[in-house]
Amino acid sequence: MDSMSFILFGATGDLAKRKIFPALFNLYIENKLPEAYSIIGLGRKDFTPESFREYVKENIKEFSRQTSKEENLNRFLQLIHYSVLNVDNKEDYQKLLTTVEKLESEKNIKQNRMFYLSVAPDFFDVIASNIKESGLGSTQGWKRLIIEKPFGRDLETARELNEKLSKSFAEEEVYRIDHYLGKGMVQNLDTLRFSNSVLEPLWNRNYIDNIQITAAETVGVEERAGYYDHSGAIRDMIQNHMMQMFMLVAMDKPADGSTIHDEKKKVLESVRAITENEVSNNVIRAQYSYGHMNGKEVVGYLDEPGITSDSKTDTYIALRLFVDNKRWSGVPFYIRTGKRLKEKTTKIVVQFKSLSSSGEKETQPNLLIIEINPTEGVKFQINSKSQLDSSVVETIETSSSLGSAKNVPEAYERLIYDALTGNNTYFSKWDEVEHSWELVQPMLDMFQGDMPLCKYESGTFGPGEADLLLQEHNFKWWN
Amino acid sequence: MDSMSFILFGATGDLAKRKIFPALFNLYIENKLPEAYSIIGLGRKDFTPESFREYVKENIKEFSRQTSKEENLNRFLQLIHYSVLNVDNKEDYQKLLTTVEKLESEKNIKQNRMFYLSVAPDFFDVIASNIKESGLGSTQGWKRLIIEKPFGRDLETARELNEKLSKSFAEEEVYRIDHYLGKGMVQNLDTLRFSNSVLEPLWNRNYIDNIQITAAETVGVEERAGYYDHSGAIRDMIQNHMMQMFMLVAMDKPADGSTIHDEKKKVLESVRAITENEVSNNVIRAQYSYGHMNGKEVVGYLDEPGITSDSKTDTYIALRLFVDNKRWSGVPFYIRTGKRLKEKTTKIVVQFKSLSSSGEKETQPNLLIIEINPTEGVKFQINSKSQLDSSVVETIETSSSLGSAKNVPEAYERLIYDALTGNNTYFSKWDEVEHSWELVQPMLDMFQGDMPLCKYESGTFGPGEADLLLQEHNFKWWN
Repeated sequence: MDSMSFILFGATGDLAKRKIFPALFNLYIENKLPEAYSIIGLGRKDFTPESFREYVKENIKEFSRQTSKEENLNRFLQLIHYSVLNVDNKEDYQKLLTTVEKLESEKNIKQNRMFYLSVAPDFFDVIASNIKESGLGSTQGWKRLIIEKPFGRDLETARELNEKLSKSFAEEEVYRIDHYLGKGMVQNLDTLRFSNSVLEPLWNRNYIDNIQITAAETVGVEERAGYYDHSGAIRDMIQNHMMQMFMLVAMDKPADGSTIHDEKKKVLESVRAITENEVSNNVIRAQYSYGHMNGKEVVGYLDEPGITSDSKTDTYIALRLFVDNKRWSGVPFYIRTGKRLKEKTTKIVVQFKSLSSSGEKETQPNLLIIEINPTEGVKFQINSKSQLDSSVVETIETSSSLGSAKNVPEAYERLIYDALTGNNTYFSKWDEVEHSWELVQPMLDMFQGDMPLCKYESGTFGPGEADLLLQEHNFKWWN
Repeated sequence: MDSMSFILFGATGDLAKRKIFPALFNLYIENKLPEAYSIIGLGRKDFTPESFREYVKENIKEFSRQTSKEENLNRFLQLIHYSVLNVDNKEDYQKLLTTVEKLESEKNIKQNRMFYLSVAPDFFDVIASNIKESGLGSTQGWKRLIIEKPFGRDLETARELNEKLSKSFAEEEVYRIDHYLGKGMVQNLDTLRFSNSVLEPLWNRNYIDNIQITAAETVGVEERAGYYDHSGAIRDMIQNHMMQMFMLVAMDKPADGSTIHDEKKKVLESVRAITENEVSNNVIRAQYSYGHMNGKEVVGYLDEPGITSDSKTDTYIALRLFVDNKRWSGVPFYIRTGKRLKEKTTKIVVQFKSLSSSGEKETQPNLLIIEINPTEGVKFQINSKSQLDSSVVETIETSSSLGSAKNVPEAYERLIYDALTGNNTYFSKWDEVEHSWELVQPMLDMFQGDMPLCKYESGTFGPGEADLLLQEHNFKWWN
């Protein structure tokens, strides 16, 4: 691995605290960091390097999946630095350059610089441009930019942002994080699909009736009202995470890991566009109302702190997509996500066509269930004679026991490691982001208008309208 | 269900004690016997009806899977009668006729008579012919004959036996028991294959590399030396049970349950005959030698009580079959059975072809494992990324939890119930028996000669020669 400087903007923020530093530490104790490197945290808060290390230490102890000897932790912390930085202040970047160059020289680090933007999206642009102007981006080695979501809040702002970033970083230098792409089972989708001869031949319209991708949360808006009420499920989940999973499920086999983006892009190019006229036929937007979670009363979205009482923000989206290519013609993809649903689960359900043959006993369709979160696993639901009464056919489930593996690397570890090694397979490329926004834009436009906003009771599986969406083709959600 | 008389020859024997009476009792308490019926036990031993009922009562208490109130058991026993019968004595059949007719008249039982021959095969013929001559077989209702294995000891004797039986019973009246066909998972094979869209399209030479059918026992010859040393694994297991499982795995889809025999027969007609010249290339016969079972020393076959020291009887057979039809051309079926093997298991392993694609990480073939005994279950072995290191592909197993179902009907319950309702789906028809003998006959002939008899250590997976049989096609046994 190349020696490098890891320059983290937003180092005092919540993500850095819970995810980024613990991930770096876990990589460290698994020997997945370069031999020579430094980590430079940047923020507005007045930490000294020492007090910042103490702060990081406490966070690692609280949030790291690995425990380790105190001396290992202290050794790791020695490589962490901190500077106060105001993102608008050009002088601060000059000082930062001096610091980086000094550390590079002291520690014999080649001029490879990883800039990680864990800050509010409003600052992406200014930071990137200051990195360029300050000379921080003029390195003899590589420079890379990891940025967090959201990448724009609609098609236009996403394009603007990309345009601006591209002045400072080339596309291949930009690592857009979609942490769903760091989840083990999401990264496993290509192996499950393409390395299994019991699945690969069946993965098409001849054998599959429909595919359902679900990301259900039990929590409500919580403390994120300010952000969420301006985003909704459509921006928070659909445009990024759900579309990424959809692409991986639907794409053709890539020749190798490096062409995975091409195959994903082709999927989006083959998706039948949902025009504004078609949105209300194919998209259900809904908002949670009063209900019960685990027997406890919970308030509706409009009564949540920080939410205005006339908010029309979607906390639930269900939509139907068709991919008009040879593999998928006619097969609906149902995608849904929501808050305050009955069960926390991220999963993909593939419903296989029933075998039509006269004289057969009525059977349930075969299902493949890929569990992504909170448990990881693979299940088949198949038909089998009842052990007690062989005249009865019932469904049985064969399940893997993946969920039991302990101490599995977290998404951020995988993703940071990939970025450090220059592997962008599980990051979002601009093409994908742009196409996703193109697909979603007519929905955003219709949501501005008077398209119905359905309501669903907290603690249920969502609005009845989402069931009707499937009933049109005689399907149902597999909950 | 039709009222009937159940006339059991060999009622004091071991099978009646452990299996038949417990099965009848279990059917009784599950209301699967007709409203009006009687059970007439026949044997050489001097029981009175009362002492016989007492004897049956004890056996049911010991061997029945169901427990029930004493009063239920007593009520069931009231319907059991006993007569002494010498199978060669024509007068005894006249007396039996009188008894049967008296009971039919008393209990308002229509003249439906089920004759169950749970006796040594030497007596099949004489009993059948005396049933006819005595008039027992001349009923206004139906008559049926259930007979136990073995059906002949080679092709010639099987044909002779069938010829004789056919004078007294028509083919559709004969229910040849193969108790493997009564096992839940064996009866499940058609449902698994034909009611699952993730399996049905793959069940052919395009997707399957080979199929392995194993019935492994841990026990040795035990008290059955007299019988076994004249039969060997070839007659005891291969010609009947293994061939039946093979037919169900390989057959085409029957239009309905009644044509299952036609499809099974077609499989045997398509099997490539193993000529005498070919036997030693396709069949491994072996005998267990000294070894260890669970850490305890066990003697070799030749040192077993009742076995002569120069016996060449096979306690293990492995063989390779090809089915020369459209579905299976080129796919080897490996069939093996043996005593004193490492593990007790009856299972079918379907090995799917690997996906050949350059640049792929090395993966294991996908497997479908159908566990028949002692646990019942369905497993898939598929490839999946390691949760700990996503650059590694490993196999995971998805398993059903069928084995946990309790109090599942036993094979004899299913089979007796089927015979009572006139359903011969899971009995061996003459065609199948004859074809199986035809297939096995060249092996029997070669076994008489100087074909090698391999040895294998007790407590192992069998002789190394059986591994070589698979290595010829670059396969291995999935143990």
